Amino acid sequence: MTATKSLQDLFVNLLKDVYYAEKQIMKALPKMAKKAESAELRQAFEHHLEETEGQIQRLEKVFELCGVKPAGKTCPAIKGIIEEGEEDMKDAKDADVRDAGMIADAQAVEHYEIARYGTMIAWANQLGMREAASLLKQTLDQEYGADQKLTKLAEGQLNRQAAA
Amino acid sequence: MTATKSLQDLFVNLLKDVYYAEKQIMKALPKMAKKAESAELRQAFEHHLEETEGQIQRLEKVFELCGVKPAGKTCPAIKGIIEEGEEDMKDAKDADVRDAGMIADAQAVEHYEIARYGTMIAWANQLGMREAASLLKQTLDQEYGADQKLTKLAEGQLNRQAAA
Repeated sequence: MTATKSLQDLFVNLLKDVYYAEKQIMKALPKMAKKAESAELRQAFEHHLEETEGQIQRLEKVFELCGVKPAGKTCPAIKGIIEEGEEDMKDAKDADVRDAGMIADAQAVEHYEIARYGTMIAWANQLGMREAASLLKQTLDQEYGADQKLTKLAEGQLNRQAAA
Repeated sequence: MTATKSLQDLFVNLLKDVYYAEKQIMKALPKMAKKAESAELRQAFEHHLEETEGQIQRLEKVFELCGVKPAGKTCPAIKGIIEEGEEDMKDAKDADVRDAGMIADAQAVEHYEIARYGTMIAWANQLGMREAASLLKQTLDQEYGADQKLTKLAEGQLNRQAAA
């Protein structure tokens, strides 16, 4: 438990939360790629894994700009979202159904990150940390891009199913 | 654990997940309203509580359209997001900081719902359930509206802090 007395405290707290979350996502993505039936979906997960590595490096730069050593803080939200994704993967008894569920769960992850990076950018701007805001904005754009790609894959998959 | 073999199974599974999530949100919102320092924020939480009641009723109509009795299914994602919000409320030692944290955590909730309603609408359309899709779309629009209102409140709060 970390007492938060200022916006700076809140910002660093959320930075640690998201750092932990990105590291959990790094572990989850290869498992999801392995389970993907669709080659496009597998590639999307692999591509996002590479992006996530860069996102972690950007977070480390933001820690440096705050004068704080990079450290994660357990994030119950991402743990819950990933746990739900693992349950869905286990429950799916059909490969196309599993892909549809994985796309949906990956979008839940993306939206968590979109919410968190949006907040961190607003707070960084308020704290006058322009460089941090700019680094976080690069990641936010990637998260939006990943979410849109998943929407397109879902539409493509649904169209294939409809045609089957 | 529910074996999912078809898109219909996946849809009903997610419906139960979101039904559970909305009920958890119903319990969390009054606590957040009570803790809010800003009157505008308190009103935003109270207003969203009313919207959530309507959203639960819409979900019950969608269950009916599926010929399934309304029932929740434990949603680890929302449990984690709400747990994180409760920790943040407890850790905040300053009222404005607590408000800023609650706005951020409420936006994480909204984004979870935006992801889930977006997916349910796509699946409902694919399953030819136009009425269900239309009901879910009404809720999705409210979730986007709630998220935008929170962004405006955050900006207003930050501006006040900057002026202080």
